[in-house]
Amino acid sequence: MLSFISRSTLTKYRGLSLPSRFVIRAMSSSSSSPTSPYTTLAVSRPAESITHVELNRPEKRNAMNRAFWSEMVECFNEIAADPDSRVVVVSGAGKIFTAGIDLMDIAGDVLQTDGDDTARTSWNIRNTIVKYQETFSVIEKCPKPVIVAIHGACVGGGVDLVTACDIRLCTQDAWFQVKEVDIGLAADVGTLQRLPKVIGSRSLVNELALTARKMYADEAKSSGLVSRVFADKDAMMAGALEMAGEIAARSPVAIQGTKVNLVYSRDHSVAEGLNYMATWNMSMLQTHDVMKSAQAAMEKKSPKSVTFSKL
Amino acid sequence: MLSFISRSTLTKYRGLSLPSRFVIRAMSSSSSSPTSPYTTLAVSRPAESITHVELNRPEKRNAMNRAFWSEMVECFNEIAADPDSRVVVVSGAGKIFTAGIDLMDIAGDVLQTDGDDTARTSWNIRNTIVKYQETFSVIEKCPKPVIVAIHGACVGGGVDLVTACDIRLCTQDAWFQVKEVDIGLAADVGTLQRLPKVIGSRSLVNELALTARKMYADEAKSSGLVSRVFADKDAMMAGALEMAGEIAARSPVAIQGTKVNLVYSRDHSVAEGLNYMATWNMSMLQTHDVMKSAQAAMEKKSPKSVTFSKL
Amino acid sequence: MLSFISRSTLTKYRGLSLPSRFVIRAMSSSSSSPTSPYTTLAVSRPAESITHVELNRPEKRNAMNRAFWSEMVECFNEIAADPDSRVVVVSGAGKIFTAGIDLMDIAGDVLQTDGDDTARTSWNIRNTIVKYQETFSVIEKCPKPVIVAIHGACVGGGVDLVTACDIRLCTQDAWFQVKEVDIGLAADVGTLQRLPKVIGSRSLVNELALTARKMYADEAKSSGLVSRVFADKDAMMAGALEMAGEIAARSPVAIQGTKVNLVYSRDHSVAEGLNYMATWNMSMLQTHDVMKSAQAAMEKKSPKSVTFSKL
Amino acid sequence: MLSFISRSTLTKYRGLSLPSRFVIRAMSSSSSSPTSPYTTLAVSRPAESITHVELNRPEKRNAMNRAFWSEMVECFNEIAADPDSRVVVVSGAGKIFTAGIDLMDIAGDVLQTDGDDTARTSWNIRNTIVKYQETFSVIEKCPKPVIVAIHGACVGGGVDLVTACDIRLCTQDAWFQVKEVDIGLAADVGTLQRLPKVIGSRSLVNELALTARKMYADEAKSSGLVSRVFADKDAMMAGALEMAGEIAARSPVAIQGTKVNLVYSRDHSVAEGLNYMATWNMSMLQTHDVMKSAQAAMEKKSPKSVTFSKL
Amino acid sequence: MLSFISRSTLTKYRGLSLPSRFVIRAMSSSSSSPTSPYTTLAVSRPAESITHVELNRPEKRNAMNRAFWSEMVECFNEIAADPDSRVVVVSGAGKIFTAGIDLMDIAGDVLQTDGDDTARTSWNIRNTIVKYQETFSVIEKCPKPVIVAIHGACVGGGVDLVTACDIRLCTQDAWFQVKEVDIGLAADVGTLQRLPKVIGSRSLVNELALTARKMYADEAKSSGLVSRVFADKDAMMAGALEMAGEIAARSPVAIQGTKVNLVYSRDHSVAEGLNYMATWNMSMLQTHDVMKSAQAAMEKKSPKSVTFSKL
Amino acid sequence: MLSFISRSTLTKYRGLSLPSRFVIRAMSSSSSSPTSPYTTLAVSRPAESITHVELNRPEKRNAMNRAFWSEMVECFNEIAADPDSRVVVVSGAGKIFTAGIDLMDIAGDVLQTDGDDTARTSWNIRNTIVKYQETFSVIEKCPKPVIVAIHGACVGGGVDLVTACDIRLCTQDAWFQVKEVDIGLAADVGTLQRLPKVIGSRSLVNELALTARKMYADEAKSSGLVSRVFADKDAMMAGALEMAGEIAARSPVAIQGTKVNLVYSRDHSVAEGLNYMATWNMSMLQTHDVMKSAQAAMEKKSPKSVTFSKL
Repeated sequence: MLSFISRSTLTKYRGLSLPSRFVIRAMSSSSSSPTSPYTTLAVSRPAESITHVELNRPEKRNAMNRAFWSEMVECFNEIAADPDSRVVVVSGAGKIFTAGIDLMDIAGDVLQTDGDDTARTSWNIRNTIVKYQETFSVIEKCPKPVIVAIHGACVGGGVDLVTACDIRLCTQDAWFQVKEVDIGLAADVGTLQRLPKVIGSRSLVNELALTARKMYADEAKSSGLVSRVFADKDAMMAGALEMAGEIAARSPVAIQGTKVNLVYSRDHSVAEGLNYMATWNMSMLQTHDVMKSAQAAMEKKSPKSVTFSKL
Repeated sequence: MLSFISRSTLTKYRGLSLPSRFVIRAMSSSSSSPTSPYTTLAVSRPAESITHVELNRPEKRNAMNRAFWSEMVECFNEIAADPDSRVVVVSGAGKIFTAGIDLMDIAGDVLQTDGDDTARTSWNIRNTIVKYQETFSVIEKCPKPVIVAIHGACVGGGVDLVTACDIRLCTQDAWFQVKEVDIGLAADVGTLQRLPKVIGSRSLVNELALTARKMYADEAKSSGLVSRVFADKDAMMAGALEMAGEIAARSPVAIQGTKVNLVYSRDHSVAEGLNYMATWNMSMLQTHDVMKSAQAAMEKKSPKSVTFSKL
Repeated sequence: MLSFISRSTLTKYRGLSLPSRFVIRAMSSSSSSPTSPYTTLAVSRPAESITHVELNRPEKRNAMNRAFWSEMVECFNEIAADPDSRVVVVSGAGKIFTAGIDLMDIAGDVLQTDGDDTARTSWNIRNTIVKYQETFSVIEKCPKPVIVAIHGACVGGGVDLVTACDIRLCTQDAWFQVKEVDIGLAADVGTLQRLPKVIGSRSLVNELALTARKMYADEAKSSGLVSRVFADKDAMMAGALEMAGEIAARSPVAIQGTKVNLVYSRDHSVAEGLNYMATWNMSMLQTHDVMKSAQAAMEKKSPKSVTFSKL
Repeated sequence: MLSFISRSTLTKYRGLSLPSRFVIRAMSSSSSSPTSPYTTLAVSRPAESITHVELNRPEKRNAMNRAFWSEMVECFNEIAADPDSRVVVVSGAGKIFTAGIDLMDIAGDVLQTDGDDTARTSWNIRNTIVKYQETFSVIEKCPKPVIVAIHGACVGGGVDLVTACDIRLCTQDAWFQVKEVDIGLAADVGTLQRLPKVIGSRSLVNELALTARKMYADEAKSSGLVSRVFADKDAMMAGALEMAGEIAARSPVAIQGTKVNLVYSRDHSVAEGLNYMATWNMSMLQTHDVMKSAQAAMEKKSPKSVTFSKL
Repeated sequence: MLSFISRSTLTKYRGLSLPSRFVIRAMSSSSSSPTSPYTTLAVSRPAESITHVELNRPEKRNAMNRAFWSEMVECFNEIAADPDSRVVVVSGAGKIFTAGIDLMDIAGDVLQTDGDDTARTSWNIRNTIVKYQETFSVIEKCPKPVIVAIHGACVGGGVDLVTACDIRLCTQDAWFQVKEVDIGLAADVGTLQRLPKVIGSRSLVNELALTARKMYADEAKSSGLVSRVFADKDAMMAGALEMAGEIAARSPVAIQGTKVNLVYSRDHSVAEGLNYMATWNMSMLQTHDVMKSAQAAMEKKSPKSVTFSKL
Repeated sequence: MLSFISRSTLTKYRGLSLPSRFVIRAMSSSSSSPTSPYTTLAVSRPAESITHVELNRPEKRNAMNRAFWSEMVECFNEIAADPDSRVVVVSGAGKIFTAGIDLMDIAGDVLQTDGDDTARTSWNIRNTIVKYQETFSVIEKCPKPVIVAIHGACVGGGVDLVTACDIRLCTQDAWFQVKEVDIGLAADVGTLQRLPKVIGSRSLVNELALTARKMYADEAKSSGLVSRVFADKDAMMAGALEMAGEIAARSPVAIQGTKVNLVYSRDHSVAEGLNYMATWNMSMLQTHDVMKSAQAAMEKKSPKSVTFSKL
């Protein structure tokens, strides 16, 4: 949950040489700067219906400072309500995905919380933790699928963030570290809750969380943390955009209903999930999208050739 | 959930050349035809205590039509009550496992459901979804273990079906596709509820369900969807029968108690599961099977050499 | 759940030739014998804050006899309360990890339970099962992380035991067997409840529990049952101790809070887990360990260089 | 759960002198005899959209025999599917509501269940209990509200039945008895599960279930088991019909949605219930019934003056 | 959920003759008007640490219009964060507590929701319902106890509101009506979820929700919906303020911890509740308030004589 | 949770003039003194199969001191395992039932808990709370029904205790007080978890817990906290013994199965409870007690005339 910014590595920072004009424009954080209301996030629209959210403090290794925690909430609430956005890609600007929490900036919020006695201090700390938890829970509550593309380091709070996303991709040089025990605390903004539901090996989850050891791309893939590994960031961003395109082209009624019910299923028994699903689809099946899709299928057209109304 | 029957591929259909007389008889759907009450399923007894349920509309790529939905319920209720059946093998006749829902046949049931207003239409649709969900839930409620053997395509409703089975095997040429978003709907008869509890990688589950991409045998194995991959259908059917034989030869009190409690555990906390287990076994340990098995063990005999009463 | 002690193999038993003096001393069960209150366990302190619990009936292949069931509870309750113990390593003395339940010794407890009628017998059996379940649940309730190091066979009750531990390591020659159906019973002291939450492939879990087939080290690794495989027992014990050292050196407030919340998360929804976590950390963040750790980080020191108060 | 038919009281049996022709016809079990497919139930339609289900073995004090258990399921499944039925009234023919399970008739099913060993006997008994539980659960699963009108004795299985109904009315001479402990068994078809969720005093629930003492109408009212007490059976039946009329006259979309969600809420947290409710009503609010009702309200007409489509 | 404003009764509206200057000032909605940011609520501070929230559209019988739904959220979020507020009293200005939802004003939001097809309309309706549910859930999420004082009618949405409060008081002339079925819909903003957990008689809950009949003060008291009935509004407001004073004078650490855990307990098993409670109090017991209170007790002083720090 | 022992009232203490020799012997705490291993409890056997547990520090108003917390656990564990005990009566010696926690004695345990920092202090406090919670949870875990008979004051920890019992009786002069907020803390050993599940009025529960007001016998009865009120302690003890006699005379298989399942039902959905019940009774119905009871019924004998084997 903490950011150890090796200053020396920062001096090595340089712009990424992206593979194509398209991607450069799409992914460039500058493209959204003129209007972006955020100081830690760059939000852009690389292609129709796709929103790109970039962690955008590369000079600080995308460490999560105070502004970040509220900007994420604002940003995802906006995306949730925006009918022109059907899928989200999250990535990090600069050399690494994120160094995690910006300890210097955040310390006052959490570690120097005060109160007239221990109980009152605890009360205040709890409010802060709950607020910070919400920062990643908004990703899950947003009905649009969120693909996260990770390169380089993904440390502490970064793991909390990526485990709240729907699909995880990474580069061959990516590594993950549940760093919190190194700072004397149990991770409290999502990793301990979501990581075990995101990968299948309980032994591995426990090892990562208790020893703070790094996990590299290969193990991330074989353990199921990520579903694809790419050679480098450019390839990954292209892959992420392509996958986002696949999703964005399909019926938003189908896609968002799928995400909502997948999240629901995680936290419920199969019988509960089926009951909710039936109640959900009793209205959602009454969409024109089914007929449009069926017709396309009859005509041997790709589902992506169909135009669906916004949702 | 939908079947796209490429007519051209159907012309290529031909009988399977099975490796041995035994398997031919056992697996042949014709063996049960004379008495089979089903139009979409062929039910046979390839070996003692083993029931083979074959999806049997090969000319329609085993697409799930209206009859299928009720025949499955009838069939598995019968198996559940039949003391001569201790384990079930499910497979598909013909070229592929199943193309999923037979859209043409099923459309009237779901998509053309009507009512005097939207609420009433919704009500009717809900009843249909619930009925269809039951088609696969019966597999899970049946206390006898169900091994499913998948070759070729397993599309849409096929994934709903196989995730409700206990053990999944496939051929090297098998592929799986959560097809529903291509037809404009969120899968609603089990995939979104069971797939995440059946394989360990959440990222992969989400990717499959949101992009409708195909997953081939190797990834099915590495992700844990199937526990074994066989070179071809013949090898797989032989392997499935052998595994079924292992199960059928053991104490049905032990086997069925194991299935019931494994299903229970999936949907409960460890403490709840342990409590239920203790209450279950307080009577089940009072079976003669334990003594019979223990004696066989003392005498260095295989557990399979023991004859157990029916259950 | 049962131990089949092949007498012939026992004659081949011999002392392990351990690779280094350090490990020999650390792991030797004799080091604790003088004071050990247990007949089935050897408890030692191989390094600061690390407790080593060794299944110690090598001549009986560490089969679990009556004494074992209560000694485990006593032992782990003691560890839970001992501030000098921060992490536990469990392993088996002799040729194999454990042959499971000692059927001869235990039979009277479970299988010859009596009562005036079936109901009363059931009642008594249930009490015994509940007591036996507690034997492994204490591992989970103990807030200190438990690493289990498995070599050779891990059969029946052994699987119940290791699935209750936090981190699983094994040797290349290790194998696992959910043996219970071979003895005519459904496993009732933990395997059916914990194994499915410990590895990601449901199909594999079911296959193992229903067929009682052996699973070898490679599959244990690829399925996620263990997170590391070592060439032999010596290497594994050294690896286990090293990992234990990593954990023992970190803040016990962080480590134990992490275990408690990981166990909690397994059995709760993400939202429930986050709520509990916030309530937990509102006091736990008020530890000096955070400041000590942060300062070490600033000074580029390892977290392990910090001295933390006991917990 | 058992019926003790005092033969002497049976000799005192006589026809009820009902207060009005209307009620006589409506409630008379003979009115439905010609076509009734049931031997233990008399089903009639006393008024539009109202189904009256009468326990109809008055000469056996409406004791629940084998036929009863399956007829109830059949009967309520039919009602659930019948758009002409919007509300159900359940009552008992003859002198009392019901003497509970007909021990003589039922004994073979439950108490003489057999099997090759205790485990197999247990398995068979469990199947019977589950089947019997379903007899009352169908009342709860039926989306139409069920009003039960109780006069005289309501013993054993009668309490299981009435606690599964939605609204309970009784006569001044009614009494209730959780009789099962008197026969040496814990009630197993619903009372122990539903009674505590039906009345507010846990101490009273426990006292009733553990001592088998009778509870009379006044205590039934003050404890909340029934919501109204009537002077005699005629008054009660008239009251039940009037209440049923109130319900039948309202929008079936509103009424059945209300029942479904009330049952759901009982077994879920408030947050879960609200989530389900929102998903339910997103389609159900799109009914014409809302506009029809609103217009009636504007015009100061009773909601009962509106004609709603069937559901 | 709907407001039927009988215009004729409105003409009879007149000011309340309050019993004392104190109460007049305290309760007067005008006292807060100058600064109140709300159009539907009057917020005042009748005594130290007590916040009075008054439904303040008396000329519309406090019907809940669009502004109301968001103002409630804003208002309770503010109260939750205000250390000067320790307890809340909610009441209604004018002749009655509330006539429920203002159908005219709200219709556009819910009933005229539109979308390109039924699925999209449903989606939009669902968002609105969820938003409206939050209006009352904020009362429950606010850690300060909320006493609601009800006089005259409490209809439809009014019942949703009062069941989300902690303590309910009413006047002798108060009546309650779960009105929603009269308008053709199942109540969807809380009544069906909370009413059954607020009063003990399930039969009564169902009767009220399914028949829309009025329940008067006496039955509200005997059923436990309210815990006290007062002769008139003045007496009730005095009583509410007195009770609020009792609460406000006690340790806010104790009071707010009590509310948080009471709400938690409602939705969890006893074991879960105890676990959460222990984790909560491990920090909260470290308050100075305990020592201050204990000392007061030794000195035979009232707990109310102690001054506690804000929370 | 705290005991305020008014010394003056203690001077008024005098022996109870009991109504009959029988009761005197039965209830006298001296009868068990010679052998009683407890300093705070007097345990006796007033009649066959009935255990009487008396809070026995009358000179301290039965305030709960350190010894009490562990003696309760020991005592109820013993009762749970004692086949000669089938039902328990709990009451208080001397003038009142209990003044609650003995603040003076207990302070060191909870309030002066220490640790090297706040986190460690919290950890220690948590362990103490969990230990204290167990003191009352043992009552619930004991499968024998527990009747509590309350006279005079029942304050703080007393309410925690009585809400964990199965049946509550009180005298006309009894009163109850959830005292904890007066001492600056939220009740943490059971009241906030169990009281809302024990009485039906949520408003009343909240009022009691938030204001610490006294509730007298009449309200305790009308709210359902107690199921019977007696004129004085003698009458109550006679009534409690009589009720205990009713329970003790019935089949212990039936009685204990009923308690176990009633407790289970409280914390589970109806469907979960029914499933558990069926699994429980599949063995428990195979008791001789059913046949014995049925035969007695045929012969018109009281169930109490039957002799049942111990359990």
